Amino acid sequence: MGEIIRSEIFSLDEYTLKQFPHRIKLNQNENPFELPHDIKAEILERVGAMAWSRYPAFVPQRQIEAVAQYAGWVPDGTLLGNGSNDLLQLIFMSVLERNQTLVISQPTFTLYRILARGLGADVVEVMMTPEFTFDVDGIIAAARRTEARLVVMCSPNNPTGTLMSEPDVVRIVEETESLVILDEAYVHFAPGSLRHLMMRYDRLIILQTFSKAMGAAGLRFGYALAPVDLARQLNKIKLPYSVNIFTLVAAEVLLSRWDRLKGWISALVDERERVRAGLMRLRNCRVYPSSANFLLFESLNRKPADVFASLLKKEILVRDVSSYPMLGRGMRVTTGTPEENTAFLQAIREAL
Amino acid sequence: MGEIIRSEIFSLDEYTLKQFPHRIKLNQNENPFELPHDIKAEILERVGAMAWSRYPAFVPQRQIEAVAQYAGWVPDGTLLGNGSNDLLQLIFMSVLERNQTLVISQPTFTLYRILARGLGADVVEVMMTPEFTFDVDGIIAAARRTEARLVVMCSPNNPTGTLMSEPDVVRIVEETESLVILDEAYVHFAPGSLRHLMMRYDRLIILQTFSKAMGAAGLRFGYALAPVDLARQLNKIKLPYSVNIFTLVAAEVLLSRWDRLKGWISALVDERERVRAGLMRLRNCRVYPSSANFLLFESLNRKPADVFASLLKKEILVRDVSSYPMLGRGMRVTTGTPEENTAFLQAIREAL
Repeated sequence: MGEIIRSEIFSLDEYTLKQFPHRIKLNQNENPFELPHDIKAEILERVGAMAWSRYPAFVPQRQIEAVAQYAGWVPDGTLLGNGSNDLLQLIFMSVLERNQTLVISQPTFTLYRILARGLGADVVEVMMTPEFTFDVDGIIAAARRTEARLVVMCSPNNPTGTLMSEPDVVRIVEETESLVILDEAYVHFAPGSLRHLMMRYDRLIILQTFSKAMGAAGLRFGYALAPVDLARQLNKIKLPYSVNIFTLVAAEVLLSRWDRLKGWISALVDERERVRAGLMRLRNCRVYPSSANFLLFESLNRKPADVFASLLKKEILVRDVSSYPMLGRGMRVTTGTPEENTAFLQAIREAL
Repeated sequence: MGEIIRSEIFSLDEYTLKQFPHRIKLNQNENPFELPHDIKAEILERVGAMAWSRYPAFVPQRQIEAVAQYAGWVPDGTLLGNGSNDLLQLIFMSVLERNQTLVISQPTFTLYRILARGLGADVVEVMMTPEFTFDVDGIIAAARRTEARLVVMCSPNNPTGTLMSEPDVVRIVEETESLVILDEAYVHFAPGSLRHLMMRYDRLIILQTFSKAMGAAGLRFGYALAPVDLARQLNKIKLPYSVNIFTLVAAEVLLSRWDRLKGWISALVDERERVRAGLMRLRNCRVYPSSANFLLFESLNRKPADVFASLLKKEILVRDVSSYPMLGRGMRVTTGTPEENTAFLQAIREAL
């Protein structure tokens, strides 16, 4: 079988996420608030009235326009996907192949590396600084040295929470010849999107998602904001019907009600800072600033696996990220509801 | 930008499907029957009770087991996807790259060629016989000559309706060293699946879908039945959460109610044969046998585009497939409800 499946895939580890019984779930950077009942009911009623036996529209123009308006970009440059993972895969497929290079910063979201290796491409990983800021000079140097086809930056970065500044993004685009993907999955919790840069550059793509701030991880909906010429090419090999009728309706309704919902974000940012302050007061703990809906902290005394187990005994599920590069003592906790965060702070004090 | 996006993508045509106002939709091989109200209500109620802000299970084990049981294969070899297109893309990504070859029969489903070319792979197209049967010798010879990584056969074949016999599939697997995908999207309308062959071969993958006989094209749900070792490798680069919570619930409920629904299939097969008999009686028309829920016919006098337009004037939408290889006079009509088929037969008599 080694002659059939690409050999690079054989050497990949299986990417899994073990689930555990829990009461408080702070391990996947989900939004802890649920859509109000009446909004869910409106969506379900509209879906119920549709013909499920029929394909979605080949081009869901109404939803594309709604997303474009919300995101502040042109419909012709807006691509909808089955989660932003789906769009990452599309772009990687279109750009990377054997003997070509992806440059990423580490630690970061696991999928970038897997997708590129799965395609047989090389991956150059540039470590962050010891303070978990981006090594922008290192990223640029790596991209130039390898003539990298693609640079992917997650900002705010998962799992460190680090924001890449606008001048740094500009430098990476201007000082390399690579396509640059800026994965803004967590951007709603940060000062703002850098989408306006796309007016200036034809090699920049921004990814955003409904899975985090928008509270819709179960629906699988993400989108890419891309220069129009690039979007036209990507659309040629983009699978049709990748977003189903349920999610098309839900996305449209959610955007139309966003004014009612967006208070989620400031509530979560306030809570994130409260949790951070709580962690800063603990001995045996170093916590990092975050522009996302989670915090990276290091357990300076006990092993992360033991801390994880202690929290789990209290049915609190966080993420042990100690297997990530540089993060030997690292743990990541998602910002939950005020009650969940208070329970976490109480439990982590005892666990550390 | 030509240096960024793979050049093969630039040379692809845009794959689009123009929609037209219609009353009777016979252009996408959808099931014309709709799920009963109570089944839809049960699904919506269950979805409404879930937390939409949470990701689906990383491994939706319950649904994998339900599909495996229904399809007659082992759960460890069953992969669920966002439509079977999603799984085609996964397999193509894992197997094909530049300087490698995909062998397909033509005319067939458009996506195979697009996906392979998008990955920079070569595509060798083996024409069917003039009677639209598979040129099995030609397929085998092409796969051997090019040392093809992948052979994809659609059976029953879209848009010809042709079934590939079990001995022919066996020959292709045994006489080549390629991975063979058998796309059984339309298999419910044919005598039976060839999934039992996977007990004997570790280079065969079968794809099936809920979009045709199962009446759920809008939900986007397909699955691959693969040898367990191959499935394990594919799972390494399969995107997690590719099927959303709505479709996971719907698929499970639909399978649990399938005994009540499966009468759809014999009804559609009977109707397909009635439409075929009707077309056979027409002058200026040649219709081919079909094992699917559609019929290929040739307009021997008027141009397909004109016939299409005549039908559309009566708000009947069929597919003009005259741009497919070998099908200069070809049209494809999906089997609809008895009333829709009667209306089609009346209109096509006048249109031809």
